[in-house]
Amino acid sequence: MDFELECVSATGDRFAKLAGRHADEFALSPGQQDWDGVFPAENWVRMRRSGLLGACVPEDLGGLGVTSIHDLVVAMTRLGRGDGSTAIGVAMHTTALWYFARLRRGAPGTIDAGLTRGLELFLRACARGRVVACVAISERGTSLGRPRTTATTAPDGYRLDGRKSFCTNSPAATVFLTSVRMPGADGPDQLGFALVPRESPGLRVLQNWDAMGMRGSGSGDVVFEDCAVRAPFIIAGGPVGQLSAAVFSLTLVGALALAGVFLGMAEQAQATVVDQVTRAARAGEAAIQAQVAENEIDLACGRALMQRAAWLLERRLDTGAPDLERAEFNGLMREVQCAATATKRAAIAVVDRALTISGGGGYLNAHALSRHYRDVRAGPFMQPFSALEVGEYIGRVRLGLAPRSDDPGQGN
Amino acid sequence: MDFELECVSATGDRFAKLAGRHADEFALSPGQQDWDGVFPAENWVRMRRSGLLGACVPEDLGGLGVTSIHDLVVAMTRLGRGDGSTAIGVAMHTTALWYFARLRRGAPGTIDAGLTRGLELFLRACARGRVVACVAISERGTSLGRPRTTATTAPDGYRLDGRKSFCTNSPAATVFLTSVRMPGADGPDQLGFALVPRESPGLRVLQNWDAMGMRGSGSGDVVFEDCAVRAPFIIAGGPVGQLSAAVFSLTLVGALALAGVFLGMAEQAQATVVDQVTRAARAGEAAIQAQVAENEIDLACGRALMQRAAWLLERRLDTGAPDLERAEFNGLMREVQCAATATKRAAIAVVDRALTISGGGGYLNAHALSRHYRDVRAGPFMQPFSALEVGEYIGRVRLGLAPRSDDPGQGN
Amino acid sequence: MDFELECVSATGDRFAKLAGRHADEFALSPGQQDWDGVFPAENWVRMRRSGLLGACVPEDLGGLGVTSIHDLVVAMTRLGRGDGSTAIGVAMHTTALWYFARLRRGAPGTIDAGLTRGLELFLRACARGRVVACVAISERGTSLGRPRTTATTAPDGYRLDGRKSFCTNSPAATVFLTSVRMPGADGPDQLGFALVPRESPGLRVLQNWDAMGMRGSGSGDVVFEDCAVRAPFIIAGGPVGQLSAAVFSLTLVGALALAGVFLGMAEQAQATVVDQVTRAARAGEAAIQAQVAENEIDLACGRALMQRAAWLLERRLDTGAPDLERAEFNGLMREVQCAATATKRAAIAVVDRALTISGGGGYLNAHALSRHYRDVRAGPFMQPFSALEVGEYIGRVRLGLAPRSDDPGQGN
Amino acid sequence: MDFELECVSATGDRFAKLAGRHADEFALSPGQQDWDGVFPAENWVRMRRSGLLGACVPEDLGGLGVTSIHDLVVAMTRLGRGDGSTAIGVAMHTTALWYFARLRRGAPGTIDAGLTRGLELFLRACARGRVVACVAISERGTSLGRPRTTATTAPDGYRLDGRKSFCTNSPAATVFLTSVRMPGADGPDQLGFALVPRESPGLRVLQNWDAMGMRGSGSGDVVFEDCAVRAPFIIAGGPVGQLSAAVFSLTLVGALALAGVFLGMAEQAQATVVDQVTRAARAGEAAIQAQVAENEIDLACGRALMQRAAWLLERRLDTGAPDLERAEFNGLMREVQCAATATKRAAIAVVDRALTISGGGGYLNAHALSRHYRDVRAGPFMQPFSALEVGEYIGRVRLGLAPRSDDPGQGN
Repeated sequence: MDFELECVSATGDRFAKLAGRHADEFALSPGQQDWDGVFPAENWVRMRRSGLLGACVPEDLGGLGVTSIHDLVVAMTRLGRGDGSTAIGVAMHTTALWYFARLRRGAPGTIDAGLTRGLELFLRACARGRVVACVAISERGTSLGRPRTTATTAPDGYRLDGRKSFCTNSPAATVFLTSVRMPGADGPDQLGFALVPRESPGLRVLQNWDAMGMRGSGSGDVVFEDCAVRAPFIIAGGPVGQLSAAVFSLTLVGALALAGVFLGMAEQAQATVVDQVTRAARAGEAAIQAQVAENEIDLACGRALMQRAAWLLERRLDTGAPDLERAEFNGLMREVQCAATATKRAAIAVVDRALTISGGGGYLNAHALSRHYRDVRAGPFMQPFSALEVGEYIGRVRLGLAPRSDDPGQGN
Repeated sequence: MDFELECVSATGDRFAKLAGRHADEFALSPGQQDWDGVFPAENWVRMRRSGLLGACVPEDLGGLGVTSIHDLVVAMTRLGRGDGSTAIGVAMHTTALWYFARLRRGAPGTIDAGLTRGLELFLRACARGRVVACVAISERGTSLGRPRTTATTAPDGYRLDGRKSFCTNSPAATVFLTSVRMPGADGPDQLGFALVPRESPGLRVLQNWDAMGMRGSGSGDVVFEDCAVRAPFIIAGGPVGQLSAAVFSLTLVGALALAGVFLGMAEQAQATVVDQVTRAARAGEAAIQAQVAENEIDLACGRALMQRAAWLLERRLDTGAPDLERAEFNGLMREVQCAATATKRAAIAVVDRALTISGGGGYLNAHALSRHYRDVRAGPFMQPFSALEVGEYIGRVRLGLAPRSDDPGQGN
Repeated sequence: MDFELECVSATGDRFAKLAGRHADEFALSPGQQDWDGVFPAENWVRMRRSGLLGACVPEDLGGLGVTSIHDLVVAMTRLGRGDGSTAIGVAMHTTALWYFARLRRGAPGTIDAGLTRGLELFLRACARGRVVACVAISERGTSLGRPRTTATTAPDGYRLDGRKSFCTNSPAATVFLTSVRMPGADGPDQLGFALVPRESPGLRVLQNWDAMGMRGSGSGDVVFEDCAVRAPFIIAGGPVGQLSAAVFSLTLVGALALAGVFLGMAEQAQATVVDQVTRAARAGEAAIQAQVAENEIDLACGRALMQRAAWLLERRLDTGAPDLERAEFNGLMREVQCAATATKRAAIAVVDRALTISGGGGYLNAHALSRHYRDVRAGPFMQPFSALEVGEYIGRVRLGLAPRSDDPGQGN
Repeated sequence: MDFELECVSATGDRFAKLAGRHADEFALSPGQQDWDGVFPAENWVRMRRSGLLGACVPEDLGGLGVTSIHDLVVAMTRLGRGDGSTAIGVAMHTTALWYFARLRRGAPGTIDAGLTRGLELFLRACARGRVVACVAISERGTSLGRPRTTATTAPDGYRLDGRKSFCTNSPAATVFLTSVRMPGADGPDQLGFALVPRESPGLRVLQNWDAMGMRGSGSGDVVFEDCAVRAPFIIAGGPVGQLSAAVFSLTLVGALALAGVFLGMAEQAQATVVDQVTRAARAGEAAIQAQVAENEIDLACGRALMQRAAWLLERRLDTGAPDLERAEFNGLMREVQCAATATKRAAIAVVDRALTISGGGGYLNAHALSRHYRDVRAGPFMQPFSALEVGEYIGRVRLGLAPRSDDPGQGN
């Protein structure tokens, strides 16, 4: 694919090539599977075996050792060309691992030896394909910073109660990263994060995902009912209502990795119709050339935005310097949100034009484009920040005002 | 619904109200039915009983007697609010009946007594709900004016051979209007039109419609294999490759009626989210207000375009004056295509914004919007003219050049 | 011009034809005049002589007797094809006269005999071309409903102090309609409207208009310094901060008439480039056809929106029924704003594409398009509602919330 | 300015800083100057003195020694923030010098010693500020590859006859790079390039530039009448009608440098209104935040596209490898055109929104935005490829077809 994004590290390159091979396999799955809404568990079995799921685990712990944010994003574009549902799941899982690996290689002394040991055990398990992580933070009717799921103190740690939705990847997950409202030491409620193994009593994965697209993403609900979590697996991350500093880097990289998946879908859609048009000997039609050109322009935007945003993040996050202040985070996040928003919009536009170019054919379920069309529309719903929120966030930060996500004082 | 289109005739008003009642019924059908792709045969049973399908049959022949193009379009917007799949089928059926009724009330002497009698028999049957018409003219890999389906002379008339696709409504149809390539008297091949009863030997309706949207439209293939058609039921309409003058008025009204369906879908989508937002007490959010406003602007465009285009058509088609010259047709068609194109684009944009306003909820199959989103995208594929052709058509006509659809000389 | 808007009344038709003739004259003015920023006073002399400025004066008082809102808008599209600057001035003047003529023909008893006599004197003067009205209501740094210009009581009436800006047409005006903050009987300040003759001591017209477009509109500042206005020429229209019920109909028609001017500019731009392309034998180029087609689509939108919005207004305002309630006004205004916003956006897009079609030529001052490009961008600044306000207004009204312009309680 | 593009080389950094200082100076010029259309000759005097015009001259020849394409583009964004007219002139001049400097440092033996000596003399003169180059290649009514200006053989070289238009920078130029049609050795006409000193007899610079924007760019006509050019200063570059391989690298870098200027204008427009809004304490308004956010998104696109396209070019052009094949050129040019097209569109959109945010104020000539609005619209007219051509070019190259600019056989 001409002028596709290219990795800058050898480890990244291996990751991207592996992702590309998986994409080819996953794309072979019959279109019908998507329509039936069956979770493609076999995709996950394959990725556990191939080592893809351990891409960001350090080499000394058995992984591929990818640290480059840029290359992580590139790999996501490759994977996104196959099956978008699987790819967004991998993006979330991989970002989590990238985050844990970064924690582990943090400045000595920033985390204690016990936590380091725990992280290493966890990352080794990831490298062996024993771990599939699910990010379970959305809840209906509330914003990200204000979960209604509670963690109440119990003799051996905490008890969780609540219901999470849009838990991509939950059918395959072995561990859930979830957000809770937990009692503060002696102040207001805290926004906490917990790591809950699948086998925990009181945790239930509902296989209730039924959406118009991303049908194989298994993004159903996860219910916690008096679910025990031991103390080391839950941490407080600041006051409820405020985006937590502890996960700044995770949030930045996660938003970019997801956008990469949508760019990959768009690249695939364009490749598909260019191929179709060429085989049908219609490449000479002016109306088709015009649409193909607009798609190239949008793809060029998406690629450039991903490359530059990743470069901006790496410049700051890979320095070993102390972690981000809130203001610096908001600056970087603004750029990441600009890049992700524009890329996701571009991806939607590209797939839409591809449908136009395809003639009525792309509207049929037998055509891969009909799946892309439904899948790619999921992008702007993803948080932070969804399409309804992102304009205010970017606008306020640019105008020097505190964004709503900084404000623990607001209602709800 | 504020500022919705309103009928100008009493008969139209009855038609629109009936359409509105059916829309309510059809909307009640569980979302799942759409997803399963089952053709909603019961909708058609209901419409045969209610008299809706005979709306354009003259009152003296037992119908509602609707003649107003404007009111036909208004009724289609109402029906489109329920189930888009059913509504596009009704739009095609109803336009055909409008056309036959207009033929019958034509200037005395323009059609012979035999044909008049035939038309009246047919229209009476329509009024009794015995007729469901299917327009079967698309074929894969060729343009509308150049069917590959052939009509060859046979002792008692003709034999048809070929395969039509995108035959909306075919599972319910009792009669098929189809286009063929037939031998000219002593010149080049002619573009012919045939009326083929469903029970004709050699006609096969394939129930193979499986698309991402308009799933209940039954727009599968229809196959003719040595299918006998008696001479009176087939007419030559000019040289192959040229849009046929015989169906000018049918083509104009049909394009508008279909656009009306998409406007109705958009109206429903907006009503749905305005209601949802109000109930969720989120009407005060600026980002939501901004999206709602853009939707209102697009709806205002769609309504105005439908009203004005219908008014332009009526001014010319309802005069009893001799029928359209090709140049006059192209002028009117240009306006109709401007109106239909802008309305269908507006409808797509409205449903897309409604999805944004809905939050993640609208992406779920349980939410009516997810169906609208898939359905509404069908609009620009419809001919004449699809999105890939319409710019050239409008541009050439405005610039005083002959459109491609006027040219029997072109290849293929 | 194909499918241009057509008048529905004979008086309207005369008005539109006269406007068309003036447009031809005004368009002949050398492009340079615009660039130099000289106010085209001779245009106004011609219009005073031709009777155009008395179009809405009743026939029994010597005018053309135009009452149709639709036809008023049509005439504005015709005038807009010549010189936009002059046309917006005429739109404001003519709307004011339409409003006064409607007041005079109001239900008997709604205005007293004295006022009726005053109106008739005024309208007769208008018919003789003795009156040019200027609407002077904008002020820097405040919203329309909250003027800072004050009217303080004086022995023989009031004294005005303040400064108005964007007073289109002020160099030619003989009378100024202005808004003031005046003391309420025994409550909060009132939003008042005054009619101030040009020769009033204390009124100064600054010839300080210097903008990138609409250069001939003379939209400079008007200063009131201890300017005496006699009591009958000033009325209170409700609390400050709230759009005044007294001018509901004026506001509705004015917004539409202005939008008509911009549509006319766009029609002219398209005609210009279609002509240029045809003469250059470039009509066969696909890229040009595509741009021409998009322009036709946008023009069709603008025309349809103007026609339907005028029809909606006429249905309500021409009934002789009691005047509008605030809620009904907001409903109608919402539709008018949808129509005006979409039309002005469409006009800007059409002129922009015309520039593209023209090649570099249209960028030169010698080409009429360069003027249209600068002029047409003025549309979205006009109040009520400017581009920054209109989304909130439409959104809130559609969502059933009171618009900001209903609220006398808000700050400032 | 947050997240502005940053140079990657120390020499580039010096260039960009110098450009920034000049931008500040040039921006101080009264707005009136632009309106009067006077060429800002003093800007050029300043740049000749400061060394800015010798930025791409190698250090050993007295210049700043900038070789990085990326940094050249960055410097153009900085200069574009001041006066767009001057900046596009500098972009063309500087790209020409970059091209000559690259020729000189080419693989040993690719150019002969005589040419090397000539280039060095020329570049030294550039470093001393003695040279201002003007690219004079556009002609009315023909495409870039088919000049009508002729070079006919004469005893001591050639005689030029013809008229060039859009010769940006011509009032200040000391030397003109122009394109001609010259006799081929023994075949078809050749597309030739000539370097003509200003003092050449028969060369006339018409000061006839009068456009709506870029008023200070001096982009008038240059006329050659029996103008003598000595043989070494003219070269044949392949058949007429075909983009010349000799100037591939010049064309690529030139398109990018110009796009950089427009990005700089947009950055300035956004900075201006953000500042204005903040000072007016209106940053809290949702409608303003939304517009500011869309601007940030567009600026992020423009910056990312410039950075990535420059990186792609450098990767290929700075290798010392043999120069580009036609196919490889078209690939790179496609990416450059995607980047330039999207950036110029984004810049136009940003300035337009800035105007909206400014309220009526930005429409006035006293406000810097009104100049930006007129200037920024020049971008899509620039060749290769103008807005009417670029879609076809990108589309054809992506679809594997030869672009029109490769075809010496086509008409005209």
